This record gives sequence, structure tokens and C-alpha cells, in this order.
Amino acid sequence: MGCVTATTGRGSGTRAPGNRAPRNRLSPDERRSQLLDLGVRLLATRSLDELSIDLLAEEAGISRGLLYHYFGNKHAFHEAVVRRAADDLIAQTAPPVTGDPIERLLASVTAYVDYVVANYEGYLSLVKGAAGGNEAIRQIYDDARNALTDRIFREDAQGQIIEDTPAARLLMRGWGAMTEDLVLSWLVDPTGVTREELLAMMAQSLPALGSILPQPSVVEH
Amino acid sequence: MGCVTATTGRGSGTRAPGNRAPRNRLSPDERRSQLLDLGVRLLATRSLDELSIDLLAEEAGISRGLLYHYFGNKHAFHEAVVRRAADDLIAQTAPPVTGDPIERLLASVTAYVDYVVANYEGYLSLVKGAAGGNEAIRQIYDDARNALTDRIFREDAQGQIIEDTPAARLLMRGWGAMTEDLVLSWLVDPTGVTREELLAMMAQSLPALGSILPQPSVVEH
Repeated sequence: MGCVTATTGRGSGTRAPGNRAPRNRLSPDERRSQLLDLGVRLLATRSLDELSIDLLAEEAGISRGLLYHYFGNKHAFHEAVVRRAADDLIAQTAPPVTGDPIERLLASVTAYVDYVVANYEGYLSLVKGAAGGNEAIRQIYDDARNALTDRIFREDAQGQIIEDTPAARLLMRGWGAMTEDLVLSWLVDPTGVTREELLAMMAQSLPALGSILPQPSVVEH
Repeated sequence: MGCVTATTGRGSGTRAPGNRAPRNRLSPDERRSQLLDLGVRLLATRSLDELSIDLLAEEAGISRGLLYHYFGNKHAFHEAVVRRAADDLIAQTAPPVTGDPIERLLASVTAYVDYVVANYEGYLSLVKGAAGGNEAIRQIYDDARNALTDRIFREDAQGQIIEDTPAARLLMRGWGAMTEDLVLSWLVDPTGVTREELLAMMAQSLPALGSILPQPSVVEH
């Protein structure tokens, strides 16, 4: 969920100069996790190329050397941040546990749009990195898209909206590509389309697409 | 339509050794156009990075210097080839002039799938280059997508399938992103989905999406 609690080197009024005790209470895993959250927060408003070890070191108030200790190198650092960002996206777009299927879907796409708006630069970096030939980023992106597609069928286990078939999986993956294109295109030029209309299109398109698939009781043409 | 007539430096049985007369009958524009067609044909089975001036020179049987004369530099050459490829895509996916709207749509998406199958590497290069930060390629890609979206509304000028509104334009652009994802995902893993099922999904999804938009006679919610 990107709950960032890492203290930074600037404006941290709760820490006495030279007193590093609060930081040292964290385990290395906790500290690494905090740094990833900070990385995700920094990535929200800048591209991956702009997210350097130097910037993270400055924002976290720790040395570059310590960051290399935690992440190895810049590529590994970028991958870890992007994987955390993808995990955040998956967590934040989880639909409510109960409710009408379409209402739950609407809640999920609303969270998705909110996420992309709040993390625009980083999200664009993920999309660009995945398509642009960065193999590690592409793998993270694909994993996230597969997880989101899997969730459609897991959440709709009774097949109320769509039956689980290879064709349905392909189509729902395509729906994911469409929703991504919708929100990114809308953010570039929202003229004539309200946020509510965008959300309605995203939610209603899923069952509309489901309706073109062969239904369980119908023999395939 | 990518009608390639350029003779190549290899296996060209119609040209006597040292006889360059047939080439010289072409105007510079015609010759440049032939070279672009050859570039598109070469791009079909390799990425843009693999399409070098050297390769084109070898395949066309002319000097690198002459190619630089025609195209200026490698980037300009790549842009010209990609623009030609995008023009080919638009031309090849033009629906038949007459017929039932859905039949015409099916013919168009069939041509699109055929195009992507026949020009897989080059098409992937276009998608990757556009998303990956190559600004010139992104512009060509966007122009092509806009042309394809425009065509939906031009071909359906009577609004038989979908009315022309900002929301409908956004959604049809999203449909384009979905169809691209469908064909590229299907080519990576076609398990359980026949070509006919893929084509049916692509064609039927458009009116299905159109049905979720506010209808002309209905007051907006």
C-alpha cells in the first residue's frame, strides 16, 4: 500500500543530530522495505531513468554505499522498486470482499484509475520499460497483468460475469490492455469525458466483452 | 500495399551482370519508394535495431553511400521505413466498400491479424519503439492508431454501430489497444483459441463495447 514511514535526511524534527538509534531498531529487511516504499513514492512523479541511487540516498538521508549494500546495483534497485510498485497496484486494486459483482468491479477500476493518477510517471515508466525491451521490467509487468487477469476469474469463481476458458483469459487480458489505454489516453486528453464516464466505461466493458464469448450452455459455433 | 518490386543483389536472374539500366529508368522518388518497400519487407522478420543501412545496401545491391543519399541517416531511414509500414497496415486493413457493417469489420480485423502475422518482428518493433521512448516512432504509431480510430467513425458514418462522441472515440482507441494485445498475446500462446475464435472476438467486441455507451436517444445518466 506504499505506507511510507522512512525518515528522511531533511526536515526530520524527531531525530536528534547524530542519534541514529531509531533507524537501527529496524531489521535489515524492514529497512530495505522502507527504502523501497520511499523509492516507489519518488517514482510516482519521475521516470525510472530519473530515479537514481543518489536521489534515494539524499531523500533517505543515508549513504550511497549503504544503498548499494541493500540493492546491489542500480538495475537491481530499479527492479525492486518496480516490483514493489506493481505489488502496490495489485493490492490497491483488490475489490471489496462482498457486494454485487459489478459494484465490486467498479470499486476495483476506480482504485486502478486513482493509482495511475497518483503514480503517473512511475506507471508510465513501467509500461514503457516493459514494452521498450527492458526484460526484467517486462517480466514484472507481465506478472502483474497475469495476476490482475487471474483475479478476475478468481473473484468471479461462480462465473457470474465470465466463464474461465482460454478465449476468456485472452479477452480479459485484452480488457486489461484496453483499460490501461483508456486511463492513459484520458489523462493526456480528458476533453469531453468525465471521470465517472471513464470509470463506467471501464467497469461496464468487462461484462459487455464477456457477453460475446460462447456461453456455457451453448454449443460452440 | 507493400508491393515490392525492387530487385535484390542476390538471385536476381533478370539482370545481366553489370547492366544497371533497369534501375536507372526509375525516378529518384520511385527508387526511394522501392527501397522503402524492401526495407518494410526486411523489417517483417527482424527488429528495427537489426535493420541496418548495410543490410539494405546488400539486399538492394547498391552502395551504402547511395542509401545515405536517399535517406540521410539511419534514424531517418528507420522512420521512413516505419512510416511506410504503418501506411501499409492502414491500406491493408481497409474494409470492403460495401456489405454488412459487421462483415466489413470482420474483413478488416482479419486483414489486421494477417498483417501482424506476416510482419511480426517489424510490428513488434513499432509497438516497442513507440512505447519505449523513441519519439519519432511514437508519433508514427500514434498517427496510425488515430487514422484507424478515425476510420471506424468514418466507415460507420450513419452510427449503425457506434455514435461519434469523445467517449466513443476514447473507447474505440481502447478497442484498438485491446485488439493489438489480443493478436500479440495469441501469437505468443495460441493454446485453446482458434484463429476463427480470435477474429470473432476482435470483430464482435467492437459493437459490444459500443452498446455500453449512452445511446443517441437516451438522456445521459
